[in-house]
Amino acid sequence: MDKKQLAIEKHREWQGKIEVISRAPITNREELSIAYTPGVAEPCLLIAEDEDRAYEFTRKGNLVAMITDGTAVLGLGDIGPSAGMPVMEGKCALFKTFADVDAFPLCIDSKDVDTIVQTIALISKSFGGINLEDIAAPRCFEIERRLKEVCDIPVFHDDQHGTAIVVGAALLNAVKVTHKEMGTLRVVINGAGAAGVAIGKHLINMGFGNIIMCDVNGMICEGNEGLNSGQEEISHISNTGREHGTLADALVNADIFIGVSRPHLVTKEMIATMNQGIVFAMANPVPEIMPEEAKAGGAAIVGSGRSDYPNQINNVLVFPGLFKGILAVRARDITEAMKVAASHAIADVIPPEELTPEYVIPSAFDRRAVLAVANAVAKQAEAEGISRIPYAEIL
Amino acid sequence: MDKKQLAIEKHREWQGKIEVISRAPITNREELSIAYTPGVAEPCLLIAEDEDRAYEFTRKGNLVAMITDGTAVLGLGDIGPSAGMPVMEGKCALFKTFADVDAFPLCIDSKDVDTIVQTIALISKSFGGINLEDIAAPRCFEIERRLKEVCDIPVFHDDQHGTAIVVGAALLNAVKVTHKEMGTLRVVINGAGAAGVAIGKHLINMGFGNIIMCDVNGMICEGNEGLNSGQEEISHISNTGREHGTLADALVNADIFIGVSRPHLVTKEMIATMNQGIVFAMANPVPEIMPEEAKAGGAAIVGSGRSDYPNQINNVLVFPGLFKGILAVRARDITEAMKVAASHAIADVIPPEELTPEYVIPSAFDRRAVLAVANAVAKQAEAEGISRIPYAEIL
Repeated sequence: MDKKQLAIEKHREWQGKIEVISRAPITNREELSIAYTPGVAEPCLLIAEDEDRAYEFTRKGNLVAMITDGTAVLGLGDIGPSAGMPVMEGKCALFKTFADVDAFPLCIDSKDVDTIVQTIALISKSFGGINLEDIAAPRCFEIERRLKEVCDIPVFHDDQHGTAIVVGAALLNAVKVTHKEMGTLRVVINGAGAAGVAIGKHLINMGFGNIIMCDVNGMICEGNEGLNSGQEEISHISNTGREHGTLADALVNADIFIGVSRPHLVTKEMIATMNQGIVFAMANPVPEIMPEEAKAGGAAIVGSGRSDYPNQINNVLVFPGLFKGILAVRARDITEAMKVAASHAIADVIPPEELTPEYVIPSAFDRRAVLAVANAVAKQAEAEGISRIPYAEIL
Repeated sequence: MDKKQLAIEKHREWQGKIEVISRAPITNREELSIAYTPGVAEPCLLIAEDEDRAYEFTRKGNLVAMITDGTAVLGLGDIGPSAGMPVMEGKCALFKTFADVDAFPLCIDSKDVDTIVQTIALISKSFGGINLEDIAAPRCFEIERRLKEVCDIPVFHDDQHGTAIVVGAALLNAVKVTHKEMGTLRVVINGAGAAGVAIGKHLINMGFGNIIMCDVNGMICEGNEGLNSGQEEISHISNTGREHGTLADALVNADIFIGVSRPHLVTKEMIATMNQGIVFAMANPVPEIMPEEAKAGGAAIVGSGRSDYPNQINNVLVFPGLFKGILAVRARDITEAMKVAASHAIADVIPPEELTPEYVIPSAFDRRAVLAVANAVAKQAEAEGISRIPYAEIL
């Protein structure tokens, strides 16, 4: 059976990749009277007095809403809310498997920003966090921004920030291995969608150096016309030399290339113009340049989204631990500093002496990453005064 | 430890009464590539071609949305969406425990009918059915009516119809035991909220006889002023003699009293004016008349919502099996005939020779009821042409 057929058969067999089970035994009248009426009235009344007690008496404290509008599902594009569900369920299964965090998938059947924001806000109270997923740019920027304003729980668009955090982690180690100097680096990001813009902002926050965003029209420069809200925002803090030109122009003397765009946009000749390039070509499943070709062009370190090459840049290293940490301290928000802390935590999972050009990022199945991220994020939330309960080590 | 304290401790220990687990093994790269990218793209594409395949490849086929606005939670009233969650989670736990149906609780933070309807409709596609819960009357009538119009899955307000179905079941057997004649009975329902109105309509559909609804102002009569939409609708088909007067007036020569109102509204003297009365006093936790007092007044059969007296009228006999049946044939709707079929199925769980005045309704833990209801409902859905797949016996 080929891989595609196997995936279909397995999904048919599973009948859904998530399941909602009961944590309360209800096998006799006595148990029924505690889990349901009349006993259940007591926790209800306690929460009515103080809403934060929902963390204590309901699943809120371990529960994430996994929400999409189905407009940017994998590489499949706008396939609608129902068709996006297998991906959402898969992500929920990853949350549970990797971090014992409960996540429940919800697809919103609308493409209107106001409607999506309102719908999510109205159902958000029973969750401890919100993970936005597979929402197309530029809509995703506004949806996330507005939800962060109205919700008293963390809102995280994984396609943006999960990707940014794991890229930041891999780069920290790649810079160490290549002995490049933080703060002085020329970083070219190709693809100015949700992920690209988020990576750009995150790398600026982490202090890598001058970030140059590129899209199909070449380098994005302050004052360019036709930029969306996310691109416009980053144009003020990136490309500090106000350069114009193509992706090829941008890559000359660049230290780092990050691809979140399309297959085969980069040649080995372009790589050869870089300064001992760190090349993370993450278009999926076919990268901007194949790893062997990038190496042939002289790249010092190569990473991709693929599991069949070294240095797989996979945001499953991020979101399970990140939400575990958030939930552990009942955080009210996710801040930039928490994201930076997450990148450092993932990078530090690999002891310096083990770092090599082929090993700058832990395996997706390295459980150390989950706890490292969880603890880093929880600690940082407490330090910023946005936790509801004190931090204690997450084991 | 007293009961209230025990309920609080247990809820604290459970940290939520539901849990979302993974049904797909994800322990290595191979499994990850099937449950998530790239394998997951295949079921996504199949659903994009034909939305009904979501029943096959996602949890939709076994998943119910448990939705409230927190405005009529138990006897606690409008305690808000967060405080309503322990009840919602408890109900979800019952779904799973009694019928292996997955249910997920959602609280909507709005009291506006338009907003509530829109919110539910927008997230409904990933569910196989919608259970509305603890929404105050008269809002609940319009919300349910409008959702049934826009959703292609069954919508069921349990406080109305679950209660009506189990009352109908108990009455069928009570009428058998007392040798009363269906169609000729005088049925007095006290309490014209969501449950009362739904019970009235259901008993009319089942052909018990003349239904007389009462509220605080006495008998409801066609043309009365100040009726809400549900009350107005039932006023045209109930109280066929256009009687006016108090609850006490209504009870004279009544065969059946159904109480869904408040404690201690009925005296044994009032019961004594009934015709060999069947008395289901279901105000919770203290009924309209205590069972022993009703007996002393000459009631032939007495039931209540309490588990410490015979004939507990509990809608846990209804909703698990009802949704199990609906999901088994992927029904598009719940019809009046399906509700009637459910009442008969529950009643028929008890063989005629076992019926006694103290045993007209199965125990809440009688698992036979779940399968009986599931099969009856599924069969009826197929008969009405609103099933998506053929009925096969549910075992």
